[in-house]
Amino acid sequence: MKTFNEIKTVGIVKTKFFTFADPPEEMILESGERLGPITLAYETYGTLNSEKNNAILIEHALSGSAHAAGRHHPDDKYPGWWDAYIGPGKAFDTDKYFVICSNVIGGCSGSTGPASINPFTGRTYALDFPMVTIKDMVNAQFHLVNHLGIKKLLAVAGGSMGGMQALQWSVSYPHMVNSCIAIATSAHLSAQGIAFNEVARQAIFNDPRWNGGNYGREVPAEGLSLARMIGHITYLSEKHMHEKFGRNFQEASKASRNINSEFTVESYLHYQGIKFVERFDANSYVYITRAIDYFDLQEDYGGTLANAFDNAEANYLVISFTTDWLYPSDSSKEIVKALRVSGKNVNYIDIVTDNGHDAFLLPAEILEKNISNFLKSEFARLGKNEEV
Amino acid sequence: MKTFNEIKTVGIVKTKFFTFADPPEEMILESGERLGPITLAYETYGTLNSEKNNAILIEHALSGSAHAAGRHHPDDKYPGWWDAYIGPGKAFDTDKYFVICSNVIGGCSGSTGPASINPFTGRTYALDFPMVTIKDMVNAQFHLVNHLGIKKLLAVAGGSMGGMQALQWSVSYPHMVNSCIAIATSAHLSAQGIAFNEVARQAIFNDPRWNGGNYGREVPAEGLSLARMIGHITYLSEKHMHEKFGRNFQEASKASRNINSEFTVESYLHYQGIKFVERFDANSYVYITRAIDYFDLQEDYGGTLANAFDNAEANYLVISFTTDWLYPSDSSKEIVKALRVSGKNVNYIDIVTDNGHDAFLLPAEILEKNISNFLKSEFARLGKNEEV
Repeated sequence: MKTFNEIKTVGIVKTKFFTFADPPEEMILESGERLGPITLAYETYGTLNSEKNNAILIEHALSGSAHAAGRHHPDDKYPGWWDAYIGPGKAFDTDKYFVICSNVIGGCSGSTGPASINPFTGRTYALDFPMVTIKDMVNAQFHLVNHLGIKKLLAVAGGSMGGMQALQWSVSYPHMVNSCIAIATSAHLSAQGIAFNEVARQAIFNDPRWNGGNYGREVPAEGLSLARMIGHITYLSEKHMHEKFGRNFQEASKASRNINSEFTVESYLHYQGIKFVERFDANSYVYITRAIDYFDLQEDYGGTLANAFDNAEANYLVISFTTDWLYPSDSSKEIVKALRVSGKNVNYIDIVTDNGHDAFLLPAEILEKNISNFLKSEFARLGKNEEV
Repeated sequence: MKTFNEIKTVGIVKTKFFTFADPPEEMILESGERLGPITLAYETYGTLNSEKNNAILIEHALSGSAHAAGRHHPDDKYPGWWDAYIGPGKAFDTDKYFVICSNVIGGCSGSTGPASINPFTGRTYALDFPMVTIKDMVNAQFHLVNHLGIKKLLAVAGGSMGGMQALQWSVSYPHMVNSCIAIATSAHLSAQGIAFNEVARQAIFNDPRWNGGNYGREVPAEGLSLARMIGHITYLSEKHMHEKFGRNFQEASKASRNINSEFTVESYLHYQGIKFVERFDANSYVYITRAIDYFDLQEDYGGTLANAFDNAEANYLVISFTTDWLYPSDSSKEIVKALRVSGKNVNYIDIVTDNGHDAFLLPAEILEKNISNFLKSEFARLGKNEEV
């Protein structure tokens, strides 16, 4: 049965590609290294208006892609990753707004990343791919936004790593960002978050098929699957896990005690791991988690987060979830506090939910209403500002 | 510098061994399988009094051993795992009490486990070792306590999996347990706890050196190390991790960004992983985590925890820690509630600390005082009861 939000769909969509930074005009990365050519896979939903002031850039999280809404084929089992929030009449209302989503550099869903061919060697980059940062991801998106002829974005929005990019956009390109929606995110990952990313990477490195990053068709499936399993535990709240799985067994009513998996929660994690391997590249997982670890918005601003926002011109909507322990509410509150110290206009809501970090992906009226109302008010404000 | 508690030491101690259940008199396990001969490695501290009513059985956690206090050699870097609490004048006061600690069956520190020789094949058990449960561990200890000539234990005490054993003792052998100290534990592991144990096991299974459990000297070091790293994250609170490691780098003042480990928290985890491989067997890790997963105190009592305690004769001290998210305070409160429903005498304290699950191992005056006072009162009560 389709939910109400699934019926209001953007329909069949197609991923597009934009290539830039052809040598010798490579993009200079934060590390000083050069990367080019760069291809960004992206999708758009809705129509750019003549004033070009209704564009919203959606930023995806660690395992996301450019495919944020609709279906590629009528028989696709699932729609894009944020379909609950993007479409006609939805929070990101495609009847009003022009919504863009691009796969990050370093990714593996059409954009240039470690699985791409290195033009200088003719072989897969693998670990020769340069380290990319959240700032680099945003800088690459800047070229796409330029290419689309958009001078100012109505909003930049994302959850988790997507929220990091949204915040970075508002700081890196202050004149281009009218408003910023940062959900379930942080200005810098916690030590615990880094620790979880590191054990996930080790799971990949420990897989002999990983082979120092040089794998062909024999991908490090077991390692990547385990990395995803570890990740999934951190996306769910303990309470949600208890309610969803409890101590139930997958098959027998009574456990046949052995070392093999049989608790329902174990089957669920294994299923998530196996599914992930079909669509994600292990090296991308390594590079992107590292980008998340290194992200520190205040790094270039004397270690004071409020200073990072000083030049920002956006209004902000910051949202956290009470049971999110990977990006806990305190991380959002730190952002809100810094924005207020910096004199910015910020709306903050800590949404009560059992859904943990995953809550930013799941349909919820309260999240939809908050985004929807914020955007309406921001769209009105942007229109007025332009009249003046 | 030695802490005050380290100066008051039980001194140089020696692990002893007790072997029983020689074929054809094997011990029948909960699964119905037979195990024998069984050796238990154990240590004792203090002196059993003539009334034999001052004996306390200490239960260790997942990675513990019989070596709970003192040092084996004068130049040992570290004392036994609960040295902060066991010794002259300490919580488990060896001037008054006779303290026993034995390595669990399934373990790898002297007791019979998967790394032991299977007498029927002459080879290491490996995965031919039968599944053991918390109940089986307790049943094996019963033979040791019998062997030591003790009819009634003044107390059974432990944290984490040790707490599970302590609770099980009070239910399995009600006449033999005067009091029970259950710290940072649960009557049944949460779905989240099972999930973490499962990803740790997968880390081991994914190591090609594990080889279906049949490894020789080439142990699955990378897998076991990763399992320990995952575990360690769950033993610390997010706040403690933040304060201990923050986002600091191990060496450079500024990160040289690459995929290799360099955050301090990563170095810490790797160090813990490597250290663990030197002293622990991978198959034991698999078996013991499974015993923890399967533990469900109310399973044989119609799924009602209070019923499980109905025949128990012990007084209880239940202790949890506010930042323990692996065995959260709610798990302890569930035990306390069931004990009260069952009409038992129970003291409960939720200790405020930043130390997470690890708090049960770390020196803390409030934990020491609570155990110490409870034992004094229980020792007095036991003496009086016997006079009557």
